[in-house]
Amino acid sequence: MTVRYKVTLAYDGTNFAGFQVQPHQRTVQGVLEKAVNRMNKANNYVHIFGSGRTDAGVHALGQVVHFDLVNDVPDSGIVNGLNSMLPLDMQVLQAEHVSANFHARYTTHGKRYLYRVSLCWYVDPFKRFYTGHWKYPLDVTLIREALKDVVGTHDFSSFVAAGSQAKTHVRTIYSATVQMQTAEHELIFEFYGNGFLYNQVRIMVAALLEIGSKRRPVHDFLRLYQVKDRTQCRGTAPASGLYLKEVVY
Amino acid sequence: MTVRYKVTLAYDGTNFAGFQVQPHQRTVQGVLEKAVNRMNKANNYVHIFGSGRTDAGVHALGQVVHFDLVNDVPDSGIVNGLNSMLPLDMQVLQAEHVSANFHARYTTHGKRYLYRVSLCWYVDPFKRFYTGHWKYPLDVTLIREALKDVVGTHDFSSFVAAGSQAKTHVRTIYSATVQMQTAEHELIFEFYGNGFLYNQVRIMVAALLEIGSKRRPVHDFLRLYQVKDRTQCRGTAPASGLYLKEVVY
Repeated sequence: MTVRYKVTLAYDGTNFAGFQVQPHQRTVQGVLEKAVNRMNKANNYVHIFGSGRTDAGVHALGQVVHFDLVNDVPDSGIVNGLNSMLPLDMQVLQAEHVSANFHARYTTHGKRYLYRVSLCWYVDPFKRFYTGHWKYPLDVTLIREALKDVVGTHDFSSFVAAGSQAKTHVRTIYSATVQMQTAEHELIFEFYGNGFLYNQVRIMVAALLEIGSKRRPVHDFLRLYQVKDRTQCRGTAPASGLYLKEVVY
Repeated sequence: MTVRYKVTLAYDGTNFAGFQVQPHQRTVQGVLEKAVNRMNKANNYVHIFGSGRTDAGVHALGQVVHFDLVNDVPDSGIVNGLNSMLPLDMQVLQAEHVSANFHARYTTHGKRYLYRVSLCWYVDPFKRFYTGHWKYPLDVTLIREALKDVVGTHDFSSFVAAGSQAKTHVRTIYSATVQMQTAEHELIFEFYGNGFLYNQVRIMVAALLEIGSKRRPVHDFLRLYQVKDRTQCRGTAPASGLYLKEVVY
């Protein structure tokens, strides 16, 4: 009989080669599995299951994983035990006992992503790993108008990077907002949807910034849904600005 | 005939072994001098003079340096030229032509330092290089009360690290404030004074946090000025929380 744990964690993605285990690479899954296995009282190797992958350089404020252990540890013991072993660029925020039906990936209701864009005329040394960067004039009202086309159920084939293994490119976005933070010279996007394709948020942000700078018509997303052609979306905003904020179950 | 330039720069101190040139180390002065000398049209080696040193890990939002070049370059040319050569953890914010009387170190009127303390119960992965950390209960009103004793002219011998070469330990602090940023779980100190001794801000912050957590009497600074004994101030807050915000001339 094993106990299933749901664990919420934050990580600075800068020094990880993404989420998924890869040989000879420092990955989120690799580092976390090593710590989890040091808590394991049985002889099996414990695998962790994430809500989804994040790419190299992408951050998490609330990534969720699950794993099974033979030992029944109090939630606070999981949090403190793992944090005592984890490096400082990854920390467990919460642990919960969950039923065997819970699956970090398959039982999600939705995911919330943030994308931070620095609008400084120079590359702020304190933001180089933590934001994207856009130094051209920008009309946020155009982006707000375009975001209305983002909400809803659409075929996002124009917004998926090569290498996606998704069976369908249809996804539903529940909400999409943008906020101007004048004091920090930042634009902050927030997308909440039932799931996102490989690089989808970063490709959408690149197209939205082009719209804001009048390099693309404001309702171009409607055309892009029709053409289903990735080459029509040239850019991909850098990984450094992307944060997996929350996974909702 | 040479032209003197005053240059204001920001740097993330994490990956610098402090300000001052040291053999085989990556330092602020070393990296900046290399870039400045690539702009130099004469054969001499151009030295830069900073407003003062910052230690390894200490950040700058507005460090000031000066240097002399034979070439008369527009201010914007200095900014863009240097930024095109500097690494992303150091950027020039401003350049100005100044008279030969200007000296980045000797003509300062004062310096403003920030110290950021994270009050999170865990080490936030996004703050590990950018704040100090205090996880004990804290009464900010005690710290505010103690800060009244900080303002003024005092002998800071109890607050200076070994290795200081200062002739006198008397300094004047014009203002000292603390701000609680509830949303970010941070305490932000700001000190403005005519000059600071080696590690002075970090030693003062450590003592102030002890006062806030009732480990030290609220008016202990008055006693510490009298005893002039560094061993009475045990702690030094980590370099990661310290920012040289502004140098005033």
